[in-house]
Amino acid sequence: MAEQRSGSTEAASNVRERPIVESGSAVKARGLEGVIALESEICFIDGQAGVLVYRGYDIHDLAENTCFEETAYLLWNGRLPNHAELDDLNETLRRERPVPERIIDLLRAAPADASPTAVLRTATSALAHFDPEADDMSPESNYRKSVRLQAKIPTVIAAHGRLRKGQEPVAPLQEGSIAHEFLYMLNGEQPGRAAERTFDACLVLHAEHGLNASTFAGRVIGSTLSDIYSAVTGAIGALKGPLHGGANIGVIRMLLEINKSGLDPAEHVKDKLSRKERVMGFGHRVYKTLDPRAAILREMMEELSEERGERAWYDMTAKIVDTMEGEKGLYANVDFFSASVYYMLGIDPDLYTPIFALSRTAGWTAHLLEQWTENRLIRPRAEYVGPRGLKVPHIQDR
Amino acid sequence: MAEQRSGSTEAASNVRERPIVESGSAVKARGLEGVIALESEICFIDGQAGVLVYRGYDIHDLAENTCFEETAYLLWNGRLPNHAELDDLNETLRRERPVPERIIDLLRAAPADASPTAVLRTATSALAHFDPEADDMSPESNYRKSVRLQAKIPTVIAAHGRLRKGQEPVAPLQEGSIAHEFLYMLNGEQPGRAAERTFDACLVLHAEHGLNASTFAGRVIGSTLSDIYSAVTGAIGALKGPLHGGANIGVIRMLLEINKSGLDPAEHVKDKLSRKERVMGFGHRVYKTLDPRAAILREMMEELSEERGERAWYDMTAKIVDTMEGEKGLYANVDFFSASVYYMLGIDPDLYTPIFALSRTAGWTAHLLEQWTENRLIRPRAEYVGPRGLKVPHIQDR
Repeated sequence: MAEQRSGSTEAASNVRERPIVESGSAVKARGLEGVIALESEICFIDGQAGVLVYRGYDIHDLAENTCFEETAYLLWNGRLPNHAELDDLNETLRRERPVPERIIDLLRAAPADASPTAVLRTATSALAHFDPEADDMSPESNYRKSVRLQAKIPTVIAAHGRLRKGQEPVAPLQEGSIAHEFLYMLNGEQPGRAAERTFDACLVLHAEHGLNASTFAGRVIGSTLSDIYSAVTGAIGALKGPLHGGANIGVIRMLLEINKSGLDPAEHVKDKLSRKERVMGFGHRVYKTLDPRAAILREMMEELSEERGERAWYDMTAKIVDTMEGEKGLYANVDFFSASVYYMLGIDPDLYTPIFALSRTAGWTAHLLEQWTENRLIRPRAEYVGPRGLKVPHIQDR
Repeated sequence: MAEQRSGSTEAASNVRERPIVESGSAVKARGLEGVIALESEICFIDGQAGVLVYRGYDIHDLAENTCFEETAYLLWNGRLPNHAELDDLNETLRRERPVPERIIDLLRAAPADASPTAVLRTATSALAHFDPEADDMSPESNYRKSVRLQAKIPTVIAAHGRLRKGQEPVAPLQEGSIAHEFLYMLNGEQPGRAAERTFDACLVLHAEHGLNASTFAGRVIGSTLSDIYSAVTGAIGALKGPLHGGANIGVIRMLLEINKSGLDPAEHVKDKLSRKERVMGFGHRVYKTLDPRAAILREMMEELSEERGERAWYDMTAKIVDTMEGEKGLYANVDFFSASVYYMLGIDPDLYTPIFALSRTAGWTAHLLEQWTENRLIRPRAEYVGPRGLKVPHIQDR
């Protein structure tokens, strides 16, 4: 990736070049750039204007006026829930939150240094073994499993986050939102109001982003009419990649390095730029202007800092952001701010990608429900450019 | 799927229709049919002529003159191994064959009725936790992990195949081929020569088939620079779908139904056709003539029947094949014969898809090694066709 894209979690949806050529009877487009694979009613992105829309609603409106559960309901159903529907969803989420004891055993069995994203991938796959309707492909069953995955994935991440440190899992309180329950199960204590509100907004902001690589991987898997656990497991595997969800770890490493150095953040960034080093968390392959999600998180982060009376971290990140804008005309992306927020909330950096998965589960499952309404196998071709007409020689003659 | 494609394990690579249209600045191709996503040196398929080629070698030549290990080496390296290289690969496979005890615990913990393909997906993901180089993306490490996965996946399938029946796993003999060791670990007794030879040929025939849905899913996941365990886990999830590897279960169900009925197979098939019912295992979206893999398996199956002195099963399948050719001009596909062969070898039908995965691991990992030599994110676009300009109403007003 070019420096200006470093730390971007999502892939291009804008067509900057047109690497599409006719090749015999087919169209050739390396990496499928610029090819429309399907129609979707879920997400609209205008990278030039910095606009992100879920199901017709602007992300600013959703982040300000809905909680994550409402957003997930919107993504799944195409409309916002009324009071009774939201209560019903929350009740189902509460009921579905606990995971089978054998899933906890599986988390316990993972070595302490195993990647939490890899462990989440394994546990998500294993949840299928204990779901009697895992292979039921009816729309009703797949909707139930979408809610079930959205309920259980936070429990898995929090339990593993504790077990790998030698702490016992904490059972959900069974009374709060996903944001509240997750922070409680992870830390063993109730989160403050600002922490819960900011974390909930992070979940809303990361819930969906069009046909990014993990969502696409999930839809490819789902298009064979394989089950939802297979598809979400594959999506987690794709999100794990450094060109996708794995980017935010790079951001926090850099921020910690700058913080530890004790140097002026602006000088540090200028120094990095002069040495042509990457500054992580700036620019985005989709957004050519400020990522709307980044703008929302920056405000929330300032609020969180003030409530906690800890301005130093916010001030440092603000200086980096201003320097990058002034020096390079590059805007901080959503990874930059979400990494900062999660750090302020005391979350271990290697849990940032699992938390991204927690949030994106809403988008993945919404895309799968959509895929299965009118399924079509997603299957491009490869052009063969290898040798032809070889004969197997006897092994003695090789 | 239309009846004539029923039971086909692979998706279209031939362009029969051209559903590609220009849409604004992009090309639109639903399901990516007819779009070339990448160049590959691994597999050439001519569906019209019934030709399948791995790395320049015809599948007939490979099935007759190489074992599965040689084929896997060919897929990974682009050339056949000499004696020393093959010995070296076999030695590595032997060393890598055992799986960690915690993987066996995981298999033991799965309920007896869990899908063996789902359990293989989970166990493959979990193998990463115990591999210290799981996230090492150097070509050398990814090659080692390709061999490692090829060694360990048969052990996982065989161990789970026994555990779910209340039998203890059987340790590998550490002296035979993958085909020999797998049948030994599964059945607890050494396979006969014809059984081993036929099974080995099945592995060669299923090792690779171009950019089918599971291979494509694996490459999409790998294209985020995620690790090989993530990509193979996702590929297993895609293979599980009934439009892909899950097809062979339908074939064996039908064969068992015909066998049990005691009716004349030809009459039974004609009866099914007259009632417009599906006859599984005939036709292929790629092959318009006889699938070359099916022809090879038919011969081997006859040989196996003769050595065992059990012609009834072979005769029944031959009658079905002849009737379908005569009545509908449709050829049996590879699933039809592999399902028959696995049944003759006494393998449980729900292990056929895991065995397909065992074999296709060679192709998946070869494609991943190729993907990473010059990686490019695989990421098409979706066209947004949903609502616009909505405002979030207060929850009381919904």
